[in-house]
Amino acid sequence: MTSIAVIGGGSWATAIIKILSENNVSIRWWLRDRAAVEHIRKHHYNPDYLRDVRLSPRKVKTFTKITDALNGADYVILAIPAAFVQEPLAALTPKHFEGKRVVSAIKGMIPQRHILVTDWVEEHFHVPIDQMCVIAGPCHAEEVALEKQSYLTIASTHEACAADFAQLMSCSFVTANPLADLYGVEYAAVMKNIVALACGISHGLGYGDNFQAVMVSNAMQEIKRFVDAVDPRERDLSASAYLGDLLVTAYSQFSRNRTFGNMIGRGYSVQSAQMEMKMIAEGYYAVNSIYEMNKQYGVEMPITEATYKILYEREAPASEIAKLKLRLR
Amino acid sequence: MTSIAVIGGGSWATAIIKILSENNVSIRWWLRDRAAVEHIRKHHYNPDYLRDVRLSPRKVKTFTKITDALNGADYVILAIPAAFVQEPLAALTPKHFEGKRVVSAIKGMIPQRHILVTDWVEEHFHVPIDQMCVIAGPCHAEEVALEKQSYLTIASTHEACAADFAQLMSCSFVTANPLADLYGVEYAAVMKNIVALACGISHGLGYGDNFQAVMVSNAMQEIKRFVDAVDPRERDLSASAYLGDLLVTAYSQFSRNRTFGNMIGRGYSVQSAQMEMKMIAEGYYAVNSIYEMNKQYGVEMPITEATYKILYEREAPASEIAKLKLRLR
Repeated sequence: MTSIAVIGGGSWATAIIKILSENNVSIRWWLRDRAAVEHIRKHHYNPDYLRDVRLSPRKVKTFTKITDALNGADYVILAIPAAFVQEPLAALTPKHFEGKRVVSAIKGMIPQRHILVTDWVEEHFHVPIDQMCVIAGPCHAEEVALEKQSYLTIASTHEACAADFAQLMSCSFVTANPLADLYGVEYAAVMKNIVALACGISHGLGYGDNFQAVMVSNAMQEIKRFVDAVDPRERDLSASAYLGDLLVTAYSQFSRNRTFGNMIGRGYSVQSAQMEMKMIAEGYYAVNSIYEMNKQYGVEMPITEATYKILYEREAPASEIAKLKLRLR
Repeated sequence: MTSIAVIGGGSWATAIIKILSENNVSIRWWLRDRAAVEHIRKHHYNPDYLRDVRLSPRKVKTFTKITDALNGADYVILAIPAAFVQEPLAALTPKHFEGKRVVSAIKGMIPQRHILVTDWVEEHFHVPIDQMCVIAGPCHAEEVALEKQSYLTIASTHEACAADFAQLMSCSFVTANPLADLYGVEYAAVMKNIVALACGISHGLGYGDNFQAVMVSNAMQEIKRFVDAVDPRERDLSASAYLGDLLVTAYSQFSRNRTFGNMIGRGYSVQSAQMEMKMIAEGYYAVNSIYEMNKQYGVEMPITEATYKILYEREAPASEIAKLKLRLR
C-alpha cells in the first residue's frame, strides 16, 4: 500500500485527499491548524474547506508535526501557497526526503527567489528532479468534492514517474494523464494566475467578453513564447494541462486572482484589495517573479508587463490596459 | 466614398453597420422585413435588434429590393444565417456581383450542400475567391453596440483584399486585423458552434467547468486536425480568429448554440428545443455538414461525432457524453 504525505490544509489539499482515498493508499496529512486536526479526527471532515468531503479514518491519518507526517511516506505532496511553503518546511532536511518522491500541487513560485517550487525542492532538499511531479489541469476543488468529471495532468521530466503517480490520482470521476513536460506545465500554471489577474483588471475597468477572449488568446501566445524560451521543446499548448488550466481560471467567477484584479480595476489599491479579500492572490507574486525572470530572457510579454506595472509600479490600470489594447490582436 | 451593401437585418448586421458608419462609407442596407425598413427610415434605429444603435440617415440607406441595395456597391456583405441565405439571393445573378467584393459575415455552411458560404458564392455568382473575405473574431454584437473594445479578423485568401476591408471595419472601439487564411478561419467559425452545442449538452447533463475546460481544449485540437486536413498550411490556432472566437461562443451564457445544447442535455428533443427557442441554432446544421464532409477526410473528431449522434441519430446524450469522456484528455 502506497503511503502518501500531504502537506497543507486548504481546499486543494482536501480535494487531492478525496481523490487519493478512492485508491488503495494510506494518507498522512499535515495541517498547520491544530483545531482543524482535532476536528477532522473527531468528525472526519475538514471544518474549513469542502466540508461535504468525508475523510475515511482508516485511510487518512492527521498529524500536527510535519516530520511525523513524512515518516515512511513514499510520496510527499506539497499543497501550500508558494508564498508560504518555506516556513513549515524549515524543520526538514534532505534526510527527511531520502527515497521519497515529491509532488507539487502548488501553482506559484518562491517569491523571494523567483524560482519554481520543484527547483527549490531540488536545491534545498536534494530531491532529484526526475523524482518530482507537478499536478496540473483544469480543476476546481469544489467540483472534485461534487465528483464532477475532471481531468488532471501529472507532469514530470520523466514520463514513467508521472505515469506512476497518475495512477494514484485516477478514479471514477478523475482522469489523470501523465505528460513529460515538468517545466512547461509548471510555468504555464504560474502564468495563468497572471492572466486571470489581467482579465479581472480589465473586467473591473468595464471591458467585456470580446476583449477577454482576445486577452486569453494573446495570453496563450505569451505563455508559449515564454516557456519555449525557458525550456525549448516540442509542446502543444492547446492540451488541457496548459489551455484548459488557463480557461478554468480566467473564466471562473470564483478565481481569487480574477477577483483581486477586478478590485484593482475598480480603483482599489493593492493594499486595500488584499485587506478586503483577507488573502493574497497568488498571481500577485507570480507576476513579479515572471517579470524578474524575463529580464534575462527578453521575451515579448505585454500582458505580464501591463499587470506588473499596475501592481508594482502603481501605474493607473486604465492607461496601462489602454496601452495593452494596442499590443493585442 | 466606398459604397457597401449589407444583406440581412439581424443584430450582427446592425453591429457591422454601426462599425462601418464610423468610417467614410455609404451603406446600402437590405432587410427582408418591410416594417423594420419603415421604422428605420422614420426613427433611425433597428426596432428588432440593438435598439440603442443610432443609424445616421446620411450614411445608411435602407432598401426593400435586394437588387437596389447592390446597385453600384463596391462591397456586398452577407449577414444572414447560412440556412436562409439562398432564398433572398435567388433573384441575383453573376451580373449583379460583377466588379464587387463579397464579404461573408456568416458563420455556417450551406445546409443541403455542405459547402462554405464563400465556396457557394464563388460557384453560384462567379465571384473570384480572392475577391472575398470573411469577418471573424470574438465579437458579441451587443458589446459592439456598447462600444466595448473588440477585435475582428478579416480573412481572405489574399492578405491585400483582407487589409482593404479591415480598414473599413476599424474604428475607435474595433481593431480589425487582416489574415491570409480564408478557409481555416471560416471552418473554425463553423465548428465553434458545434463546440458550443457540445458544451451546452454536457452542462445540461450536469458536467461542470472542469469538464468544459477540457472539452474546449480538445475542441481546439479537433478543429486544428480538421482544418489542417482540408486546407493544409501553417497556422497558429491560438490566434484570436480561432481560439478567441471559440471562447466567446463556448463561454457565453447568451450563445444560442449553447442554450440549444443545454436543452438537449436536459432531455428536450431536437424538435421541442427548436420550438421552445423559436429559432434554430446554427450549430445544428454545422454538425451535419462537418460530419458529412469528414466522411471524405476521416479526421478523428470525437466531439463532432458525439454531437452528431445525439442530434441526428437520437442517441441518448448521457451515454454519448459518457463515451466522449473516455476520448478526451
